[in-house]
Amino acid sequence: MNLKDYVSEVPNWPKDGVSFKDITTIMDSGEAYKYATDQIVDFAREKEADVIVGPEARGFIIGCPVAYSMGIGFAPVRKDGKLPREVIKYEYDLEYGSNILTMHKDAIKPGQRVLITDDLLATGGTIVATIKLIEELGGIVVGIAFLIELKYLNGMEKLMDYDTISLISYDS
Amino acid sequence: MNLKDYVSEVPNWPKDGVSFKDITTIMDSGEAYKYATDQIVDFAREKEADVIVGPEARGFIIGCPVAYSMGIGFAPVRKDGKLPREVIKYEYDLEYGSNILTMHKDAIKPGQRVLITDDLLATGGTIVATIKLIEELGGIVVGIAFLIELKYLNGMEKLMDYDTISLISYDS
Repeated sequence: MNLKDYVSEVPNWPKDGVSFKDITTIMDSGEAYKYATDQIVDFAREKEADVIVGPEARGFIIGCPVAYSMGIGFAPVRKDGKLPREVIKYEYDLEYGSNILTMHKDAIKPGQRVLITDDLLATGGTIVATIKLIEELGGIVVGIAFLIELKYLNGMEKLMDYDTISLISYDS
Repeated sequence: MNLKDYVSEVPNWPKDGVSFKDITTIMDSGEAYKYATDQIVDFAREKEADVIVGPEARGFIIGCPVAYSMGIGFAPVRKDGKLPREVIKYEYDLEYGSNILTMHKDAIKPGQRVLITDDLLATGGTIVATIKLIEELGGIVVGIAFLIELKYLNGMEKLMDYDTISLISYDS
């Protein structure tokens, strides 16, 4: 199965000159969604992950079925103000302004082997923030899985110290 | 397994006098998450669902593993401006102000049997909006599954015409 055939490219969204990679057409197909998930499950098993972490909201779409398939937990990374109990926070810069991501303090136990999932690797800001949160809680990031990698944005350079996979990649 | 034991009740969140039901402690437990998901999968199979729909973001956490387990598609309901292709919209009133939910126009094909998932039924506004979107696209809502129902808010009264399940309920 060529997963790239299931991605919708949306020209000039969210702004002019950007060709957005829409993954909802992968999820629309039961076969494609299962095929993609099972590849990430294989990677997570190889890395002996014992918890899955994903940033909202598309990281949930990728990571939740992986956790379910393995019978392990899923811990969400959410925007500031969305998680109800005691959290840790990490603030990072965006093109304009900044963003704060949070995790519950008890979401990861020290020494847990964590696999991070997200739909798309662009410049990597969200994933670096997610790594910082996990490591602050004492978790070990054993792998990072993306559905899509935009190679021309060089996000992987920020993740050189980690084992990563991306199921689909775009060179330009 | 008593799923209610895995819910965290957070007093006075998001505002004074509200006891928030936090489901992240269900997801933290691989066993509880799998147990809850499998009950919804059983319901979805009985209803012969052929696509799962969930509103962001917690509806993804519930619905995505159900879709994966059944090998069927998942279609997200998102806030206005989040979905990149052509959408339909539904606006509904909140306690203060209003909210707009959207779905991609091609997310549901006419005649498809749709199961809706969400984490929690309170007054039912989000779910009624989700039903309207699905039915506008020609989908048949064959069931609605909640992890938690707050019975004292009477949201089920709005859903009398549909088959529903809730795995955990609170009377007060």
